[in-house]
Amino acid sequence: MSERRKVQVDLLRDTIAGEVVTSADPDRDTGSWFPVPDEVDLPSDLRSLFAKARERLGFVPNVFRVYSFRPERLSAWFAHYRQLHQPTDQLSAADREMIAVVVSAANGCLYCLVAHGAALREALGDPVLGERVSYDWRRAALDPRRTAICAYAEKLTLQPREVTRADLQTLIDVGLTLEEAWDVAEISAMYNLTNRMAMATNMLPNAQYSGQARPA
Amino acid sequence: MSERRKVQVDLLRDTIAGEVVTSADPDRDTGSWFPVPDEVDLPSDLRSLFAKARERLGFVPNVFRVYSFRPERLSAWFAHYRQLHQPTDQLSAADREMIAVVVSAANGCLYCLVAHGAALREALGDPVLGERVSYDWRRAALDPRRTAICAYAEKLTLQPREVTRADLQTLIDVGLTLEEAWDVAEISAMYNLTNRMAMATNMLPNAQYSGQARPA
Amino acid sequence: MSERRKVQVDLLRDTIAGEVVTSADPDRDTGSWFPVPDEVDLPSDLRSLFAKARERLGFVPNVFRVYSFRPERLSAWFAHYRQLHQPTDQLSAADREMIAVVVSAANGCLYCLVAHGAALREALGDPVLGERVSYDWRRAALDPRRTAICAYAEKLTLQPREVTRADLQTLIDVGLTLEEAWDVAEISAMYNLTNRMAMATNMLPNAQYSGQARPA
Amino acid sequence: MSERRKVQVDLLRDTIAGEVVTSADPDRDTGSWFPVPDEVDLPSDLRSLFAKARERLGFVPNVFRVYSFRPERLSAWFAHYRQLHQPTDQLSAADREMIAVVVSAANGCLYCLVAHGAALREALGDPVLGERVSYDWRRAALDPRRTAICAYAEKLTLQPREVTRADLQTLIDVGLTLEEAWDVAEISAMYNLTNRMAMATNMLPNAQYSGQARPA
Amino acid sequence: MSERRKVQVDLLRDTIAGEVVTSADPDRDTGSWFPVPDEVDLPSDLRSLFAKARERLGFVPNVFRVYSFRPERLSAWFAHYRQLHQPTDQLSAADREMIAVVVSAANGCLYCLVAHGAALREALGDPVLGERVSYDWRRAALDPRRTAICAYAEKLTLQPREVTRADLQTLIDVGLTLEEAWDVAEISAMYNLTNRMAMATNMLPNAQYSGQARPA
Amino acid sequence: MSERRKVQVDLLRDTIAGEVVTSADPDRDTGSWFPVPDEVDLPSDLRSLFAKARERLGFVPNVFRVYSFRPERLSAWFAHYRQLHQPTDQLSAADREMIAVVVSAANGCLYCLVAHGAALREALGDPVLGERVSYDWRRAALDPRRTAICAYAEKLTLQPREVTRADLQTLIDVGLTLEEAWDVAEISAMYNLTNRMAMATNMLPNAQYSGQARPA
Repeated sequence: MSERRKVQVDLLRDTIAGEVVTSADPDRDTGSWFPVPDEVDLPSDLRSLFAKARERLGFVPNVFRVYSFRPERLSAWFAHYRQLHQPTDQLSAADREMIAVVVSAANGCLYCLVAHGAALREALGDPVLGERVSYDWRRAALDPRRTAICAYAEKLTLQPREVTRADLQTLIDVGLTLEEAWDVAEISAMYNLTNRMAMATNMLPNAQYSGQARPA
Repeated sequence: MSERRKVQVDLLRDTIAGEVVTSADPDRDTGSWFPVPDEVDLPSDLRSLFAKARERLGFVPNVFRVYSFRPERLSAWFAHYRQLHQPTDQLSAADREMIAVVVSAANGCLYCLVAHGAALREALGDPVLGERVSYDWRRAALDPRRTAICAYAEKLTLQPREVTRADLQTLIDVGLTLEEAWDVAEISAMYNLTNRMAMATNMLPNAQYSGQARPA
Repeated sequence: MSERRKVQVDLLRDTIAGEVVTSADPDRDTGSWFPVPDEVDLPSDLRSLFAKARERLGFVPNVFRVYSFRPERLSAWFAHYRQLHQPTDQLSAADREMIAVVVSAANGCLYCLVAHGAALREALGDPVLGERVSYDWRRAALDPRRTAICAYAEKLTLQPREVTRADLQTLIDVGLTLEEAWDVAEISAMYNLTNRMAMATNMLPNAQYSGQARPA
Repeated sequence: MSERRKVQVDLLRDTIAGEVVTSADPDRDTGSWFPVPDEVDLPSDLRSLFAKARERLGFVPNVFRVYSFRPERLSAWFAHYRQLHQPTDQLSAADREMIAVVVSAANGCLYCLVAHGAALREALGDPVLGERVSYDWRRAALDPRRTAICAYAEKLTLQPREVTRADLQTLIDVGLTLEEAWDVAEISAMYNLTNRMAMATNMLPNAQYSGQARPA
Repeated sequence: MSERRKVQVDLLRDTIAGEVVTSADPDRDTGSWFPVPDEVDLPSDLRSLFAKARERLGFVPNVFRVYSFRPERLSAWFAHYRQLHQPTDQLSAADREMIAVVVSAANGCLYCLVAHGAALREALGDPVLGERVSYDWRRAALDPRRTAICAYAEKLTLQPREVTRADLQTLIDVGLTLEEAWDVAEISAMYNLTNRMAMATNMLPNAQYSGQARPA
Repeated sequence: MSERRKVQVDLLRDTIAGEVVTSADPDRDTGSWFPVPDEVDLPSDLRSLFAKARERLGFVPNVFRVYSFRPERLSAWFAHYRQLHQPTDQLSAADREMIAVVVSAANGCLYCLVAHGAALREALGDPVLGERVSYDWRRAALDPRRTAICAYAEKLTLQPREVTRADLQTLIDVGLTLEEAWDVAEISAMYNLTNRMAMATNMLPNAQYSGQARPA
């Protein structure tokens, strides 16, 4: 067995056995089953990303820390991902977070439900509605446009083989452009990737999300 | 209704009604429910991508044509995707195609089963085994390393919430490095995105795949 | 058609058509598909129950308002239900709320997830953990005793036919008495009733729950 | 370990190991995984309940014996349960047993299928039809009113999250009052509790049910 | 449209509309959605089969009447089917009926549950046990040999892709010969065919089965 | 233990342990978990069947070799099975293979997907379409007649209890005779038997199928 291989196996053994001395820094409690690099060892584009997040949110989301085990992958994933959250006329920032939350609920992804649940409450400016969507969008009394978007996102997640042209038409019928209809599909598809990375690595959401955008 | 919006709705109506005059060029029969741009109108990086594909395969895979409705998205997705197919010592090109096929079978994605089924037969150098994996990896008499990889990929696809640290350990136990174990997860997650884009757009596989790498 | 019957059909027609003039009092927005009686018309035991709730919580939970369409049923259900939340040595008030939340998550019951999610955060004294349990108890890092309890509650909810004596033994093995093991089963069974009443009537959770017991 | 706790663990061990000397009285073969108290040790209201059952049926249903491990719970559950079987104009005793049987079939509850199957045959006065409903209500050639009731009960059992106002309307459309529609929901919800108590305790139906109300 | 075709369509229209004048003979109430031939018009081998059934049972099972719409098919199916019910040392007539009932319960086939439920009660000489198996073999307190047989039959019915060599071994381990283990598989497979023919044609069980082999 | 029994157990042990010396003849690599008899020891009708297969296909399909462990069963099964592949006006040989493939895909049967996939490509005279049907008939752009047939076959396979008279009517509405509609049901039912025999014995498809009827 090569030395590098041996170190890796030992590292995982420690990680898996849960015996690694965890940092006193609560920001480092990511839950990950993979090693989490020190921020100082990351490429400059990621250090910059972390710095911006810290500035904007006050902390670095655990998805960044955990995914930085593979720095080029994090850069590539995030370059794609960020495109999908650019708001348009008929598909606002809140709508896009809503899709993230509906897909994450269908897949049962703890990390994304907590983190994007917070973002949804914030973007909607309605903490009660945001929480309801995270538990059951069907009973959240959404309007027909949002209902059609949620129904499409859930179906593409749970029964992708059954999706038909008629499902696409439901998005056009509530006023989305072709590009926005595509976005509903691509955001849904992206969270099917992201949810699985979160669950495969055991990412835990930063504790700060829980208190964000709650009723006064 | 704005002019741009009106044109888009009409375009979709045509597309959805199936009345668009289809090109005489069979390469253009992509099945897509979205408009497919002319190649000449694409950004140069995509024209270059198409040219390379034509050179290597003899045709442009329909996933490129269909996804080029949103050129920056195609570029971003492909930049991430291509990283995941770089072979390593314990996770060869064939192994990576095998993961693609197992996930696509679990999701029932026609496009990916045909296109990556061909790639798997080629990479394995075994057309009979490649076909078997596409229908039922469990009965394809795979060795323990490949069995562990397939089992993990299928579980992360169908029961992501149930994935545990012990599942990750099964990959390490058959000799994968931590990075390769991560790759099994990330490739699986990526095909959960890709399968859904294929099904949401109704991509059909190019006819050329069917004859590739078949028994003499 | 009798007069009484006619009135009822008309009443439902109004209710179902959503055309009933809703009260200006936000406390009255229960979501119910059935008529909700005026509190003053209820039997004295229920008026007393409502008063106590208003005193303790500051509002009357919508489950009481909605269920009071059938006053004797509400009294009977509540007399049974309240017995099940009495804490014991190895099954605290928090543990009992945890079972309520796990069952409600398995059934996807919006009302109970919001209302008992708040109660769980309060009883645990840990708003982050309480929120995690409501989305995915498996990744909430619970101790073995709570893990066994959650696993049992979820199995009895989703696969009751598969429950065996060995499942019961897992509860005894983590230190529960026979009576407490019974309670895990009976609380789980009770929330399978309660969740269905909430969903059959379309109860919506009072808005006040969303802000309770959140991080400072 | 306290003495009381020790006795309980030993008691369960015996019960679970199946080594408890079973009474020669076949009435006592309840199947329960929990201790079954002696009737003489029960509170007077339960002794009276048992006596009435013995008088009316000729035996004490095992659900009473098994549930009497927690006497106050049995009293509370039964006080609620018995309200739900009071016949009304459009929801007869037979209809209410039919709901019990349809829910129990959906959940696969042996105890309730045998015990309420017998009650349904009796209440219908049609042993062939009663048996058919217990195996597949869809092929039992029920009239539209009963078909709507069975469909609602099954949906609330298996897909409670999908129940909509339109499902409720189907019950009104076949002539049920609002109170009777509520009863369909509440009886269904109650058997979701009762089925789970039967399966969690392993109640076996009294042998006497099998021969009741069979064709001459 | 040919004359023959026209007649067939009309025949089905009548059958499907339920307007065919049904015979006063209750033996003829088969439930079938296909035309049921007059017995006198059948080939001699089937007339002989019907005569024997009438002699042995007192009536002709509806499966024979319904399947005789395609006489050669009935002959071919029955020639295969009857081989599978020949008892052997470790797989008695009762065991073979038990497999039929377990498969039919997993598929939810009314016809086979009623007809083979009666046969199972008769073959076991135990009407209580036979009824229990038809509702839930897991709680019927079967011995390890029968438990292994039922578990195998249910798995091959509901999860055939998951069946492994280890499942086969469980049958050998409880004492079955290789031929008998094959029989468990082949009987299970046969009832997966037969259940679907019963449900595709809407066969109803003869009323006589309901009273057979019940407790005195 | 009798001598015969002992030999059988030993034989299976060898088979199950995979220690039986496999023949150098690749035709003998059937995958079966049961002993496969020498062809010379088979009854003359089966030797004749094998000879005809060898003449027509160039090899003996493994289903014959594996099923010949029970020679009379093979004869009976095949006598029924062969009737179902006789083409009629509105249900051609290709249509019948299509049903076989759709059912086998729904059940996930490797043997039948490879063997009948080849037969379907041949019968359709369209290798691309045949391959598409084997992975996802919904996206194979079938005409309404074939779509109705595939939808019926899949439903009878996966949700037999839900099949209604209206499903049967869909077959008549696309022009099938009553006999042909029956055939769709009976072929579907037959492959539910055959798929399970293939999976219970672990039949592997002959390697020759993979190259048959592929694009030039």
